[in-house]
This record gives sequence, C-alpha cells and structure tokens, in this order.
Amino acid sequence: MSNAARFPAPGGNKTESEEGTVFAPRFDAEGLVPVVATSARTGEVLMLAYMNEEALARTVETGEAHYWSRSRGRLWRKGEESGNTQRVVEMRTDCDQDAIWLKVEAAGADAACHTGRRTCFYRAVPLGVAPGGGVSLRFVDSERQFDPEAVYRHADAAKGTLKSSE
Amino acid sequence: MSNAARFPAPGGNKTESEEGTVFAPRFDAEGLVPVVATSARTGEVLMLAYMNEEALARTVETGEAHYWSRSRGRLWRKGEESGNTQRVVEMRTDCDQDAIWLKVEAAGADAACHTGRRTCFYRAVPLGVAPGGGVSLRFVDSERQFDPEAVYRHADAAKGTLKSSE
Repeated sequence: MSNAARFPAPGGNKTESEEGTVFAPRFDAEGLVPVVATSARTGEVLMLAYMNEEALARTVETGEAHYWSRSRGRLWRKGEESGNTQRVVEMRTDCDQDAIWLKVEAAGADAACHTGRRTCFYRAVPLGVAPGGGVSLRFVDSERQFDPEAVYRHADAAKGTLKSSE
Repeated sequence: MSNAARFPAPGGNKTESEEGTVFAPRFDAEGLVPVVATSARTGEVLMLAYMNEEALARTVETGEAHYWSRSRGRLWRKGEESGNTQRVVEMRTDCDQDAIWLKVEAAGADAACHTGRRTCFYRAVPLGVAPGGGVSLRFVDSERQFDPEAVYRHADAAKGTLKSSE
C-alpha cells in the first residue's frame, strides 16, 4: 500500500460532501475519524474507536477492521492480540463524512472489549436524576467472554511487551 | 441547573474507571465526548454527535437528547428547530467512559439527519477495493422524511437567523 494520500481531501462544497458519491472523509486535527462498530448479528453497539487514513484505507481494502490506537500510538488490526478480529459486513459514512459506521462479524470469543466483554458499552447511566448528587452506573450485558488477564498476558509474553488497553 | 462541575473528574485508576459504578465521563481536550445515537426501534445508527458537560447533564436529567453543536458553537437540544426530538430510552457509557451510546425514540418526522433522512449514515462505502483509484459511495436508506429547505427556512424565518447544519 502506497504512502501517498489515499483519499481525496474534502472540498468546501457542502452539497458535494452531503449529496455526492465521492468518498472524501474528513479527518480531525489529529488526523482521525471516529468509528462506531455494531454487531451485524444483534445490532448492538460494540465499540467506538478511531481510524487514521491508513487504518481506513486498510479496512476498505481488506474488509477487516483496522483502527488507530490512541493509547499505543500505532495502527491496530482489531483482534491482532486477542483473536477477536472483526470482518466488516457493511461500511457507511455520514452526511458530512466525518464519522464511520461499521457493521461487523466478530470472530474468536465474540468480544469487542479488551475487558473481555462482547461490547464496551456494558454499563447503563440512569436517567431522570440531577447529576449533581453523583450518578451510579448499572452493569448490563457485562458477562465476560474471555479472561483478559490470560489472553493479553499470553500475547505480551509472546512478543515481550506490555499493553495498556486496546 | 448550577454551573458547578456536574460530574466527578475521572481518576487515574483504570480499574475504577472500567469496573466501578461511579459515572466520571472523560471529556477530550475540547471538553467533548462522542455520542452514538441508535434507534430504539430498529437498532440502526442514526448519528454521531458530541456532548459537552452541560449537554450530558441535561440529557441525563431530562431524558431528552442534548448535544454540543460544533458548527454553531452552542448547546443544541436535538430537534429544537426541526421538531425531530429524541427521547432517550437507554444511555450507556463505555469501558473507559469516553464515549456515550444513546438508544432513542425519534419524534416528529422520525429523521435524525439535517438532510431530512432517518439516519445520517445514508451512504455505503464499498469494500475490497484499493482506495487509490477513488471510492464511489452508494446511497442506501436515503429517502427523505422531510424537506430540509422547508423545515429550516421556516425555523430561520421565525428567529431571523440562518443555520448551516445541525
């Protein structure tokens, strides 16, 4: 894959960006675009992550989800350590092309979250309360599909590094 | 609603943030957190937007979606102009509490997008192609539920301002 710009720069024309067919994604000041991954099977939101241009290009080309890990500062093929890769069933962009939606099929333990859970969104925020008094989260869909200690220790041992989080 | 900090500052303790019940959302350098809104009815992703602390507090308190409009630089009660308000059925946060997922019921024309469509994600990105040659988007779920010209011109006329986009 070449290092040249992989996507055209977004133009200033709002109508073209919103109603056109040219994919010209709009990256933020850090060169990233937010990405929502949902389960193609259940529809639930699995995670929110970021792609830089290279991660986006690799995802388009291979149909396998690649992200930019902000904590590790590098390209991240989802599941490269845990085995929980994501095959992209459908990719969409939004009106102003500054966000991406992936419908994915998860492989491995069917867990998107580095804590071992199916989704990163395993806690609900109660509604109808004034936040001032403190808001208590409620665990939902929080069963672990794998043991993160075991999985990441094994991966770390294999390459001699310690990871903080995906 | 007071102007004091509405949520506790996130601590440095990863385990508390990921496994605790204290809602201590992590805002980015601009004081924002990304928010995915999905339809409580169909499960589809409707939009990706941002909340500042006030928008988040109002959403928790009222159960009605409030965002921070980056283009207009102000708090934005979703649907305040178009009538397409969003009642929050469930709110969740993710593992490191730097993203929010809302399941919403849309009122009005059942359209989340300022272009008049049900979802902002009305174009698919084809997969399995090398991006270098240009990527052509394909319109899907792109039927308009309302005429944005008519709806926003009416709202603009009522208050004598011109809006760029929600």
